[in-house]
Amino acid sequence: MNNKKGLPAGRQAVVLLSGGLDSAVTLSLAKAAGYECFCLVFDYGQRHRKEIAQAKKIAKAAKCQYQVLKINFPWKGSALLDNSKVIRVSAQHGIGKIPNTYVPGRNIIFLSFALSFAEAIGASALYIGAHAQDYSGYPDCRPEFYRAFRKVILTGAKAGKNIEIKTPLINKTKAQIIKVGNALGVNFKLTWSCYKGGEAPCGKCDSCYFRNKGFNDLGLIDPLL
Amino acid sequence: MNNKKGLPAGRQAVVLLSGGLDSAVTLSLAKAAGYECFCLVFDYGQRHRKEIAQAKKIAKAAKCQYQVLKINFPWKGSALLDNSKVIRVSAQHGIGKIPNTYVPGRNIIFLSFALSFAEAIGASALYIGAHAQDYSGYPDCRPEFYRAFRKVILTGAKAGKNIEIKTPLINKTKAQIIKVGNALGVNFKLTWSCYKGGEAPCGKCDSCYFRNKGFNDLGLIDPLL
Repeated sequence: MNNKKGLPAGRQAVVLLSGGLDSAVTLSLAKAAGYECFCLVFDYGQRHRKEIAQAKKIAKAAKCQYQVLKINFPWKGSALLDNSKVIRVSAQHGIGKIPNTYVPGRNIIFLSFALSFAEAIGASALYIGAHAQDYSGYPDCRPEFYRAFRKVILTGAKAGKNIEIKTPLINKTKAQIIKVGNALGVNFKLTWSCYKGGEAPCGKCDSCYFRNKGFNDLGLIDPLL
Repeated sequence: MNNKKGLPAGRQAVVLLSGGLDSAVTLSLAKAAGYECFCLVFDYGQRHRKEIAQAKKIAKAAKCQYQVLKINFPWKGSALLDNSKVIRVSAQHGIGKIPNTYVPGRNIIFLSFALSFAEAIGASALYIGAHAQDYSGYPDCRPEFYRAFRKVILTGAKAGKNIEIKTPLINKTKAQIIKVGNALGVNFKLTWSCYKGGEAPCGKCDSCYFRNKGFNDLGLIDPLL
């Protein structure tokens, strides 16, 4: 039995949702591809709770189920987790070097849990919104990392060959991502990108820089501003 | 500056410790290789707390630091986690098929956290006691899985090329593991293998079967019996 789009009924995907712009667009792409989406949101001791609250709102707006999973990194090691560290603004906004907001092994851990969730519910895809503009800085946003992780799934998971990793934004710029999101009706007002959790975005951190540049490149105004 | 064994000072390893026989021997091998060992113990909702208590005792007996990390698998999916499921004893004791004690993605998640821990403390090795006798049943105990995970570390982690995965038991039988442990002075009385958490091992589950066979093959008596 196929659904309206000619895809097998019951095709399910686990979508990693952070509350940011990228993962919101990723969710809309997974839905557009005909998947029934189960969102996975991590509560990992990030500096502010705002992105978790926004992730829930994004999942609800998309009429998708979500699971908030608490995980601990008692060893810290990143400015995103350790409140004693100041978030460094890189001179070139993260191009070519690893920023101090890198959390050791974060995306590997996130994908591992997503895989576990996918196996448990019989999902056939994992969606993650990693993309090009990040991977100059964060090693776990590079395409070769996802190819290697796919091999881990194939060799180490019971449902291995049935689970694909989807990174639909991997080669897109922020402007292209925003354009796709607009076409799919993503409400960017629900998304939060700033590393700080204030009332309004700080406008200065790497994440604000790339978000602003994306909207500016399209001649649009960020609905959060 | 080198230590007595001619190894660089400060060589540190993260050792996954379950409270079982295999990981206790793995820890002793890591110490024998000259590493300063940091044990990582997972509290993941397993059926009984006994293996966590034993893991702590094993770490203390080895004079090593340990970290107990609580992780959640809210989606269940394994007889080891879900108390409503009966642990199935496979007709051939797990040979050639995946037992229902398989926890989706468990070793992938464990390794991911170990990697994060290793990066945070600057360790150069991850030790895990996976071995041949398991890998006919559990896909995440196969050598090719560890080779694939090494590639994930190389491509996705900041400290990638500095961190090795060590699986010193991978091709050993249970009898060979026990022999190595005896040579290194492992106190097997501190180790717990039974899937049930009773006063004494049940003697019937797959884990008891392999443990008993190991001691029997060497003409030894398990100190727990």
